[in-house]
Amino acid sequence: MKIIESPAEMQRFAETARLRGEKIALVPTMGYLHEGHLSLMREGRRRASVLAASVFVNPTQFGPREDLASYPRDLQRDCRLMETVPVDVVFAPRPESMYLAGAQTWVEVTELTRGLCGAARPGHFRGVTTVVAKLFNIVKPHLALFGAKDYQQLCAIRQMVRDLNFDVEIVPMPTVREDDGLAMSSRNTYLSPAERTAALSLSRGLEAARRAFVRGERSSTVLAAAARRELEREQGVGVEYVEVRDAISLQEIAAVSAPAVVAVAARVGGTRLIDNIVLEPVPK
Amino acid sequence: MKIIESPAEMQRFAETARLRGEKIALVPTMGYLHEGHLSLMREGRRRASVLAASVFVNPTQFGPREDLASYPRDLQRDCRLMETVPVDVVFAPRPESMYLAGAQTWVEVTELTRGLCGAARPGHFRGVTTVVAKLFNIVKPHLALFGAKDYQQLCAIRQMVRDLNFDVEIVPMPTVREDDGLAMSSRNTYLSPAERTAALSLSRGLEAARRAFVRGERSSTVLAAAARRELEREQGVGVEYVEVRDAISLQEIAAVSAPAVVAVAARVGGTRLIDNIVLEPVPK
Repeated sequence: MKIIESPAEMQRFAETARLRGEKIALVPTMGYLHEGHLSLMREGRRRASVLAASVFVNPTQFGPREDLASYPRDLQRDCRLMETVPVDVVFAPRPESMYLAGAQTWVEVTELTRGLCGAARPGHFRGVTTVVAKLFNIVKPHLALFGAKDYQQLCAIRQMVRDLNFDVEIVPMPTVREDDGLAMSSRNTYLSPAERTAALSLSRGLEAARRAFVRGERSSTVLAAAARRELEREQGVGVEYVEVRDAISLQEIAAVSAPAVVAVAARVGGTRLIDNIVLEPVPK
Repeated sequence: MKIIESPAEMQRFAETARLRGEKIALVPTMGYLHEGHLSLMREGRRRASVLAASVFVNPTQFGPREDLASYPRDLQRDCRLMETVPVDVVFAPRPESMYLAGAQTWVEVTELTRGLCGAARPGHFRGVTTVVAKLFNIVKPHLALFGAKDYQQLCAIRQMVRDLNFDVEIVPMPTVREDDGLAMSSRNTYLSPAERTAALSLSRGLEAARRAFVRGERSSTVLAAAARRELEREQGVGVEYVEVRDAISLQEIAAVSAPAVVAVAARVGGTRLIDNIVLEPVPK
């Protein structure tokens, strides 16, 4: 497994591979890998001849009061996990080589990023789309895999790819969960045992919404309330939002008549967690 | 000479060429070609094995009160001129295939685009960098050629390429002028004979600044005033700005101690014209 730090070297590696006729898959990560990341990598392995993964805690997607400094990092451990896939090439740049002095260019998806996490995290998605555009230009993938856990991010990246004509296929992959339902996240390592238990209210809330949906409920307000009830029942969980939105446009909807996402964000202790499920009405 | 309208078809053409080992040069234009465009194309021809040119009057770089509707267009004439170079492939998309319904992604270079033309044309450079990013992803060039007449645009595109890691070499080319000094521009066709004469004050003003510089003048204020005097002497010329700035950062400077650009914008009748020269102090 090759480890590359320099963007220019990564670009040369990618260009040479493309000229050889290789098909490159990219899994962009912030490291501290869990089974969710690994499921993306295994799917990338299956679909491409060269599997690249990036490990980069991207400073521009963190707000000034967020956890950039404390975000967990362990490249050695990540590399051991990636060897098992196996990943062919790891791109692990330093922040100063990704953002040169005087950098001032942003890629911004406007409408999709306004609500949900975008409301509480101004600038977050601008940082995400900018770094993903950079990674696409550096790693030159034919396809890139993203987890559905970061649902709004997935929508924003798909929109960016379409709007800027990136020749990259975006492959969404289902959220991977712990046995008890908690969506996997590198930030789960922040949780104390008590918080870990309280955090289950997110997936439980989404399950409650799904059960109501399966029973025939279609009102967004009622479905969101069913999820919210589970979250508010739990001590020490601060709900940021519970929303039912169109699964593609992320627009607000009154009732579920097309695929919809139920998305939640909550603080559990000092940790901000998100989760979502997609509800798919059976076509008539 | 192949003419392609569809972004997807252009992308396939470019990818196939790259896989054959071709080197692609791109000259992005808004059409209504003049000798300035053709000089870019001839240089592209010399440097690459596949010469692509785009002809697209990009709506997102025009303000609501600007000349999008009246901007001159004549693709047949443009094609005859491009055949003489010869250009290999012309990408001439329709606006609705470049900006799909729901498009909402912008590429923005912030600091470099604030002053000069950016001050009078809010959103202009955002439209330029967005469409150039799209063209790079569609035409997949190894190099792209831009004229120095649109100096701030050239700076913004260079910055975007660096900041977003586009693997594209930007080749700047000198402004091409009419025999009497007027910088070539598709908008020169708007000028009446009297305006055409008045428009010469732009290049005359820049020449006056250059002469003062050659005589040893280094003060930005004095150099700008020398240029402005020529413009203000002319009836029917409305000066928008005359500025001396650092040639790379476009920051304001008090004195010229490193390469500097003298940039002017003025209205001649209803037509907005720009021009510039670069002053290069001899290194000590």
